[in-house]
This record gives sequence, C-alpha cells and structure tokens, in this order.
Amino acid sequence: MDIEKRLLEHDKRAAARLITKVENGDPEGYKILQTLYPNSGKAYVIGVTGPPGAGKSTLTDKMVKALRKQGKTVSVIAVDPTSPFTGGAILGDRVRMTDLSMDPGVFIRSMGARGHLGGISEATSAAVKVLDIMGSDYIFVETVGVGQSEIDIVKNCDTTLMIMVPGLGDDIQAIKAGVMEIGDVFAVNKADRDGAKRTAREIQMMLDFNKDKGWRPPVKMVIATENNGIDELIEAIHQHKAYMIENNLFESRRVENAKSEVLELIKERIERMILDQSQKEEALDAYAKRVAGRELDPYSAVDKVMMDMKVKI
Amino acid sequence: MDIEKRLLEHDKRAAARLITKVENGDPEGYKILQTLYPNSGKAYVIGVTGPPGAGKSTLTDKMVKALRKQGKTVSVIAVDPTSPFTGGAILGDRVRMTDLSMDPGVFIRSMGARGHLGGISEATSAAVKVLDIMGSDYIFVETVGVGQSEIDIVKNCDTTLMIMVPGLGDDIQAIKAGVMEIGDVFAVNKADRDGAKRTAREIQMMLDFNKDKGWRPPVKMVIATENNGIDELIEAIHQHKAYMIENNLFESRRVENAKSEVLELIKERIERMILDQSQKEEALDAYAKRVAGRELDPYSAVDKVMMDMKVKI
Repeated sequence: MDIEKRLLEHDKRAAARLITKVENGDPEGYKILQTLYPNSGKAYVIGVTGPPGAGKSTLTDKMVKALRKQGKTVSVIAVDPTSPFTGGAILGDRVRMTDLSMDPGVFIRSMGARGHLGGISEATSAAVKVLDIMGSDYIFVETVGVGQSEIDIVKNCDTTLMIMVPGLGDDIQAIKAGVMEIGDVFAVNKADRDGAKRTAREIQMMLDFNKDKGWRPPVKMVIATENNGIDELIEAIHQHKAYMIENNLFESRRVENAKSEVLELIKERIERMILDQSQKEEALDAYAKRVAGRELDPYSAVDKVMMDMKVKI
Repeated sequence: MDIEKRLLEHDKRAAARLITKVENGDPEGYKILQTLYPNSGKAYVIGVTGPPGAGKSTLTDKMVKALRKQGKTVSVIAVDPTSPFTGGAILGDRVRMTDLSMDPGVFIRSMGARGHLGGISEATSAAVKVLDIMGSDYIFVETVGVGQSEIDIVKNCDTTLMIMVPGLGDDIQAIKAGVMEIGDVFAVNKADRDGAKRTAREIQMMLDFNKDKGWRPPVKMVIATENNGIDELIEAIHQHKAYMIENNLFESRRVENAKSEVLELIKERIERMILDQSQKEEALDAYAKRVAGRELDPYSAVDKVMMDMKVKI
C-alpha cells in the first residue's frame, strides 16, 4: 500500500518512512506532503526548550504519559541541530524506546542536521506535518540545546514551553534574557532543589518587564522525575490555547508561523539553486577566491552574484 | 576626523562606532567596510565555543592576557544570538570592563540578535572585519551558547577552539557529538575537577572515529581560573595555524569561509528585499494566510512567491 494511504490510516511506520524522505531532501517526500497538506492542521504543536540539563526529555516524557492517560495520541520530535545524527540515535532515546515506544499511541523521532545545507528547521516543519497528517493529537517539538536555530524551531509552535532549573550558573542567566519573549508557559523543573523559588521569582521579574499586556506566561513548579506538577503544567498549556482561541490569536499565530516558514523555504530554495548547479557554484567559488584574496569585498560579491544570476525581485 | 581614517589609525572608538553602524544595518557602515576591505585579512581569527558553564569567557580572557604579554593586540567579540541586547551589555562584561578594557591593546564587544531579521552572523563577520582593519593581531569570537547559529559563526574562523568541562551531564554528550567536526583545538577546562581525564579520553575517542587523516586536533588540559595551561593552549592554536599554512589549507579555508559568507549575505538580501517592500510583504502575508488555512501548501506557496517576484536563477 502506498505511504499516503497508510499515513491517513495512522500508520507509524509510514510516518517514519516519510520523515526519512523529507529529511533526506527527497522530492517524492515533499510531493506526498503537498498532496496530503489539506489533511494537516488538527494537531496541537508544543515547542519545548531550555538549557542543557534542565530535564527537557524527562519532562516531555511525563507530559506524553499524562496525555496518553487522557486517551490522546502523542508524537515527540527531538531536534538537535548540532548533531549530524538522525533517525532515532540521540541520547536518552534508548530509555524512551523501551518505555514509551511500545505504546501504539506514541511516536518518537530524533532529528539532527544531516544535510550540509542546514535545513533542520525545514525538515522539522515537514516532520510536524507528517505527524499531524498521521493523526497525532499532540506533537511535542523538543530541542537539545538552546541557540538561535532552536529558538526559531520551537517558536513556530502553537505553545512554547520554556523549561528552567535552579542553579545552572551564570551563562544560563544570559540565555534566559534572550528566550523570555518566546516562552508562553514556563516550568521550573527540579523544584525540590535549592534555589528553585528564586529561579521562579527571577522569571516572574523578567516577565514583569514585558510591557505587552496580554497573555501573562504562568510559571509552574515541577519535579519531572517524581511526576510532580505535570497535570498542572498540561493544564497551563491548555489555558494558553484557550486564551489564544478566545482572543483570535490562534489563527494569526499560525499565519505568522506559515509566513516565516515560507520565507525560510525561499531562502533554502535559492541556496540550493546556486549550490546544485555546478556552473553557478563555480562562479560563486571564483568570487569567494577574490574575496579571500581581498580583491573584492563580500558585499560587492553579493551584488555581482545577484546580477549574474538575474535575481529580479 | 572621519571614521575611515581613525580606524586605520587603530582608534578603538571609531571601531566601536562602526560596529554599531553595521549592527544596526546602517548602509553607511557597510559602505565604509567596502572601502576599507582591502586593509583587512591580517588578523588571526579564533572561534571559541562550548557548552554553557564551560568557562569560555574566563579562558578567553586569560588567552588575551597571555597574548598581550607577547605584545600582541587583541579583540574579543562575545556573540549571543539568543540575546536581544547588544553593545556590551551581556553578562560578565562588567568584570571584563574593569579588568581588560583599561588596556589600550584590548577591545571587547558583545553582540546580540538586535534586528528582527536575524543577521547576527552577518553582523559578527562585519565586526571581525572592522577589528581586523583596526589592526588587531588576534580576534576571538566567543559564543555564549551552543547551537547551529553559534557553530556557523565560530566555524568561519581561522582556528576553532572547543572548550569542554567534566561533569556537565548527559545533554552535553549530545552536544559534543555534533561539534566534533568543527573543533581544531580542544580544551578541557577545570581540569582539576573529577572526571577531567575521562572527558579528555572521551574527546580523544571521538576524534579517533574521524577517518579524515590530516590535522589531529590536540586536547589540552587547562584551569582557566588558575592560569594553568594557557600558554600551551595558545601554542596549540599556533601549531594549527602553522599546519594550515604548510599544507596550503589556510587560504582554502578562508575561501570556503568567504563562500559561505557570500551565500548567507545573498539569503539575507533576498529576505530583506521581500520584507522591506510592503507590497511584496502583503503578497507573502496573503499566501501565509492560505497556508495556515490549509488551502495552499507551503511548498507551492514558495513556487508562487518566486514566480511573482520573478526570481530567475
């Protein structure tokens, strides 16, 4: 039976195969996604991010289990843009495999930056569509690190969950500052540790600075390993969803997300157009040589490439 | 006196002003850089990355001091793509200010993702050029986090230094895997801590997997806070430079870096062309609405935008 049909019948193996296709940049995979795209849009997509060591995967697993108890089907995409490995090989997956993957209502997949062209954000968006079409009620997109690419990935979700922990040192403070804007719901994990209340207070203080009156992100205390506070955290996510719908923000956020996805795809497409044609790439190489030799500055090189390639916008 | 002239006379304030200009996307700033570009290329650019808590900034500071003792002028650019703050405001800078910035031979600057268009990588490359033209012998580009953007930034350097520490937990292992390829020199900081030797051994084992016979990245044990191992680390960087030059790799790496910079600039330019013209942006918004409403798939939207905008490559 073909992938299309099997995917619409909730076949996890068909989903896995299709994700591998899009991850490899296989045009057939994108063709299938185009055909099935009208069947997407029903899943609720939750981005999960936070510093390394915050316990993101443990917390995600507990949320998955809690949603399963409510009879929901759930998918998890663990994204690691810094990893060249894909297809299920990142850390902690073995634990997950034995535990959650036996459940037919759960689908777990790791994604790394396999292609040299980047495109991890493109591949993740595509994977979300696949799992959405497959019929997942909830899709968690969880990052391994925190950096600009990770932020770009998780912010293109319906609700973004930011996980913090007490006592991760000063670098984390710097990270916090930058990610405040994208968190819709905050969790302080390992809430039994010293300093957890202080961490929560610091988050609250930073939220106070936000002049934008509207949704005030709640800060939830959780202990993922003890299954403590998980239901309340899911409830907070649902409250965010309800708020978005009531205030006509749900649709407009999805439009914004679609806009940034299309923009990213355009940039990817143009890069491929250049690099996939050896003649174009040779021209670029020749300019790069002159730039490295200081005969030509990179900004003028851009003008030249755009002219050569007749980019007319 | 104009910025151009003052910059060529090693004026730090002129450099600071020019960096602010390019950071703000001011065309005048890029105009000046174009004019002065032939004066660049003399500085040696060292990328410094590693997980939060690895002690990157302390270690960088010690290397700066060591190079100063050798009579070299040094600049440091601390890049935090996740931070909306720029111009010197990130964490730990106050310490640096009082300590290193009093030294006329040292220039320190923090950069964050100020513009909504991203472009942190573009702005960092521009800042490197400014400091190169100003006459810095060495430029350190140090990241706060580790993610794809950070990796893209540091790998576009002459030598990339990867800093690890023992006992940062499992998430770090996942990060390590992805960043192995970009490290030219490894440092295990806090080498007096338990597990430091194990961390070094793990790095060596991962390096063993690399089939590419050529430069074998050395793994140096350091204790930044005690100024222990710093000279040896700098020596390792110099050995990498010497190896690159001997094997005709120095120039080819700079050509590769120029190529990826020009490609990035092209993508940025196209994004701006779309977003800076309200008519184009409205067209994009209309498509995004249809994508969010599942009337149009994002891949077909890309085709339409490219057709509308007459992109002919």
